[in-house]
Amino acid sequence: MHAFQELSEKFDAQFNKRHFPHSPKNLYDASQYILQIGGKRVRPVTVLMGNELFSDLIPDAYSVANAIELFHNFSLIHDDIMDKAPLRRGVPTVHMSFGESTALLAGDVMLVAAYEYLNSIDPIYMRPIISLFNRTAKEVCEGQQLDMDFEKRDTVRMEEYVEMITLKTSVLLAASIQMGAILGGAGGGNQQHLYAFGKNLGIAFQVQDDYLDCYGDPEKFGKQVGGDILANKKTFLFIHAMESATEAQKNEMQELLKISGSAKVQRTLALYDACGCAAWAKDLKETYFKKAMESLEEVAVLSSRKTELEKLARFLMQRDS
Amino acid sequence: MHAFQELSEKFDAQFNKRHFPHSPKNLYDASQYILQIGGKRVRPVTVLMGNELFSDLIPDAYSVANAIELFHNFSLIHDDIMDKAPLRRGVPTVHMSFGESTALLAGDVMLVAAYEYLNSIDPIYMRPIISLFNRTAKEVCEGQQLDMDFEKRDTVRMEEYVEMITLKTSVLLAASIQMGAILGGAGGGNQQHLYAFGKNLGIAFQVQDDYLDCYGDPEKFGKQVGGDILANKKTFLFIHAMESATEAQKNEMQELLKISGSAKVQRTLALYDACGCAAWAKDLKETYFKKAMESLEEVAVLSSRKTELEKLARFLMQRDS
Repeated sequence: MHAFQELSEKFDAQFNKRHFPHSPKNLYDASQYILQIGGKRVRPVTVLMGNELFSDLIPDAYSVANAIELFHNFSLIHDDIMDKAPLRRGVPTVHMSFGESTALLAGDVMLVAAYEYLNSIDPIYMRPIISLFNRTAKEVCEGQQLDMDFEKRDTVRMEEYVEMITLKTSVLLAASIQMGAILGGAGGGNQQHLYAFGKNLGIAFQVQDDYLDCYGDPEKFGKQVGGDILANKKTFLFIHAMESATEAQKNEMQELLKISGSAKVQRTLALYDACGCAAWAKDLKETYFKKAMESLEEVAVLSSRKTELEKLARFLMQRDS
Repeated sequence: MHAFQELSEKFDAQFNKRHFPHSPKNLYDASQYILQIGGKRVRPVTVLMGNELFSDLIPDAYSVANAIELFHNFSLIHDDIMDKAPLRRGVPTVHMSFGESTALLAGDVMLVAAYEYLNSIDPIYMRPIISLFNRTAKEVCEGQQLDMDFEKRDTVRMEEYVEMITLKTSVLLAASIQMGAILGGAGGGNQQHLYAFGKNLGIAFQVQDDYLDCYGDPEKFGKQVGGDILANKKTFLFIHAMESATEAQKNEMQELLKISGSAKVQRTLALYDACGCAAWAKDLKETYFKKAMESLEEVAVLSSRKTELEKLARFLMQRDS
């Protein structure tokens, strides 16, 4: 059993290379560019952790982990095009650096490269792994579509938002851990518990992300405070405020959607305070975190084997950046 | 052994259905939209024909054919975004009907759906089929990138253009026939001959396409005459003209790249005539067609089994629309 940090180093040691040919230069340099600007590699490393819960680490786990990280970066490239995002991890996005058309294609070839890694694993795992990968890939696209659909709407119900977030961000973490478990030889029940662990942990993480957008230390969080507010994002906090506000407060919130600048952020935060959003979000995060830990407890392996996943979960929940 | 038309009807009978869930509606309606505006389905039907060269048609051939057609439509959606094309097969493109972001995602989920069909076939064929599919998918993206790169250049050498066209349009036809052959149990040599057949046929088809843009009957061809000229496309004819023109003619061609309208088309066509482009293109098409037929002859099966593929090849070469 290895700690997250150790597995992260093992993952990087084989992932930090060029994954693409050198020609056409534009195309493949664009694909390689996003891989080199970093990232925490949480998802691929949980593939390795899922494997190690049940058996020694097998080489196929690295292939699946690579596929997961390539898929994740494919989705970031395409999301950034759709969101017209200028920056990612503090540097220009792929489409800002290489143009939208090349970025689109660079994402496409990266998705194909992910399947090439999946096509290299032991045939006995191929069908279940590719099946879960495909379902997850479609769900991530569905989540992105719902997110865009919600931007055009005035109101979004809480359960709709949870569904969108689950698809857009949680299922990939859930599937990563389950894929590792499949490679470790886990039975169906254990696989499902680990999937539920990853899914609920992912939702808790998103609640925290929405919270930090409003209440995080911008120095540590690395993002502008109120970025979601300025972008009229329907976050957990926005939806809770809308659901618990008085009529007058609701009207003010609708008015605030139409203005911009720091006054928009300040007045929205004041309304969030009046609706008790901060404490509510902390509670909600805790609820999903507990669900995640309960699912992890259900996994039928020696509890000592689960320590590293538990540590990772707690670490992700303490983040302020 | 079935004729193209019969196999086309068999293909349609199982392909003409909804391939996607109903929600999120925007996303999956966009994916379904392009499938419903038709197309000749040449590529998927050649999967079935490749299979039938060597054995009775097996159900997996339909799964692979479906994957090929979904991949082809994925690439059309994304190409149309990149080319800012307003129309496809006479109706608005996906991004014009559903917006660029949804079109981008609709392409993505279609590519994933293609892999889902591939993941359903007999495990003994999965690795070679997915491997060929992945290589081809990357090559199609590379071809599109080269095409975009060439648009920004003043000159393109003939061998560069042939390489781009091979990647962008020919390898998918070649791979389709080879995949059918794999499913039919063909040996490596026969597979390679069929791949070469498809590749050279694809190039001959593109020579014809470039020719028809200048000399086709617009009523039958269904496109505006000189569309490539107006778009400054470096076609077979443009490159031949540049390579065989006098210095004065070359200068005029460079000047013509800077103007627009019907004068641009008329004067470019006059230069093509002066360079003998029409007869040259007919010869070149014939050269690639002969190469294709020679490769087909090399395939070691009873020649009577090859009749339908030969007929299809001749039919594709007679097209004036």
